Amino acid sequence: MKCRKCGSKAVVNMRQHKLALCKDDYLAWVPEQTERFILKYAMFTRGEKILVAVSGGKDSLSLWDLLDRLGYHADGLYIGLGIDGGIGYSPSSLQYARHFAESGGRTLHVVDVEGQYGASIPMLAAGNHRGHGRPCAVCGLTKRHVMNRVARDMGYDVLATGHNLDDEAAVLFGNVLTWSTDFLRRQGPVLQGAPGLARKVKPLCRFYEREMAAYAMLRGIDYIYEECPFAEGSTSIHHKEILNQMEREHPGMKLSFYLRFLEARAQGLLARPGDSSPDLHLCPACGQPTSAPGSCSFCRMMAKSRTPA
Amino acid sequence: MKCRKCGSKAVVNMRQHKLALCKDDYLAWVPEQTERFILKYAMFTRGEKILVAVSGGKDSLSLWDLLDRLGYHADGLYIGLGIDGGIGYSPSSLQYARHFAESGGRTLHVVDVEGQYGASIPMLAAGNHRGHGRPCAVCGLTKRHVMNRVARDMGYDVLATGHNLDDEAAVLFGNVLTWSTDFLRRQGPVLQGAPGLARKVKPLCRFYEREMAAYAMLRGIDYIYEECPFAEGSTSIHHKEILNQMEREHPGMKLSFYLRFLEARAQGLLARPGDSSPDLHLCPACGQPTSAPGSCSFCRMMAKSRTPA
Repeated sequence: MKCRKCGSKAVVNMRQHKLALCKDDYLAWVPEQTERFILKYAMFTRGEKILVAVSGGKDSLSLWDLLDRLGYHADGLYIGLGIDGGIGYSPSSLQYARHFAESGGRTLHVVDVEGQYGASIPMLAAGNHRGHGRPCAVCGLTKRHVMNRVARDMGYDVLATGHNLDDEAAVLFGNVLTWSTDFLRRQGPVLQGAPGLARKVKPLCRFYEREMAAYAMLRGIDYIYEECPFAEGSTSIHHKEILNQMEREHPGMKLSFYLRFLEARAQGLLARPGDSSPDLHLCPACGQPTSAPGSCSFCRMMAKSRTPA
Repeated sequence: MKCRKCGSKAVVNMRQHKLALCKDDYLAWVPEQTERFILKYAMFTRGEKILVAVSGGKDSLSLWDLLDRLGYHADGLYIGLGIDGGIGYSPSSLQYARHFAESGGRTLHVVDVEGQYGASIPMLAAGNHRGHGRPCAVCGLTKRHVMNRVARDMGYDVLATGHNLDDEAAVLFGNVLTWSTDFLRRQGPVLQGAPGLARKVKPLCRFYEREMAAYAMLRGIDYIYEECPFAEGSTSIHHKEILNQMEREHPGMKLSFYLRFLEARAQGLLARPGDSSPDLHLCPACGQPTSAPGSCSFCRMMAKSRTPA
């Protein structure tokens, strides 16, 4: 297969775009596309300060790399979750994140959940009904809280995460199977902020997972290969498998599933008549905006975990 | 496993309802549930004349049987499509429909597409771009036209079809994967009529396919086992397989996928702001209401098939 741009040997073939590219042209194509998505969805400008949530995996490190290459002001945030899983998952992923930051003279903020809040994610999950079986709900809640706190305290305008198309399509698929209308209304490349709540953006949301893996590999980015040990057997992984099965038979289905959803939503498909944003107030404990009554979900979880049994 | 109602040996186990029943209790439960759905979705009353679209398969014959048992005024309509597929599909299915009608002294209307319109479904499909590869689009269009014509000409208030939950969930799944918003808005147990357009209802839409197969078998209804030969390899069958795969892991997922969709729709999730029904006018050729400009889609297809090459 030959590169569509220069005719030399292609190394990446994207069936859904009918596009094969050589290494150099692929490494130029990915930032071009990223820039296109950033502009199309009005994610941020070069005058804004961006905080990239960095896990040490291929997506978030590639995102950081791309934003740097495109000339955006992007710093990293690594959140130490205290997950071991028999493979030293958290310490190892921190090493990858640190190494990437140092190699490019980038600024990386590190928050260790146990150091800061007195309990790691597995410990918090063990003491909380949200954590029954799997700490993912506790982990998501904690990460959202920490990311927003750091963004607010350090003056970042935008939080960027490395969610790729496979992630977004799987979440959408899950939300559709259960018709979770509130989540369907909020899902998208951009979640607008509010006073005290940073805008959230997903610049990689239109790249397939394998496209990001190819990018990281061809750019020589060193990243942690292992998935979070708690992800195994999760619903979202199951949904990814089903989507992969459909994608094999219909190349491009994942992308069209996601893009047509965005179109339908833009046309008002998911708007409830008289719909308005939820009322936000400031959590009396942490000061972050919340729509929950009283304290925010994170502070309620923390208060519970501190109550002696 | 024991029958929940009487304690004797159960013959049907519905995991999603956590309900096992013996033959007699199952044969009482299905009409009870059918009546419940008819009332819940306000499908029709005992004062209305119902036309059941009968294919000779388990679902439509069971539906007819159930409406009879429940004391509704229901006659049958069989549409001869002229499909052979190496198994004499159409002649064989007509025999089952006729036998069922005669055994119960029921009224069955028969319309033969080739006799009435000069060409069978495979012949129409061969001469039409809709039929490329598969005659399903031509067949659906023709059946909708014929059903509505018979309902109108013979004074039926309602058209009832035997679509079961597996059918409805697969259609919904397909419409969601492509975000076909117009179809999503219209899908449901009841499609309201208009002057000249009969109301359409699906009283079996909450029964799993295997529940209807069990009902037909236990009632001793003789039906054609073969699927339409053109269905093999179709997208809807592929979607059914994917849903079956998910149902095996999460019993009840098909039902909750469908019911939560209906709830979300009832809450206005799928309404476009300022949405209104499409403008209907009468087709100058056949007199049926249509939203297409000029003649209706069926008459345009027929005009094309009559044009000499």
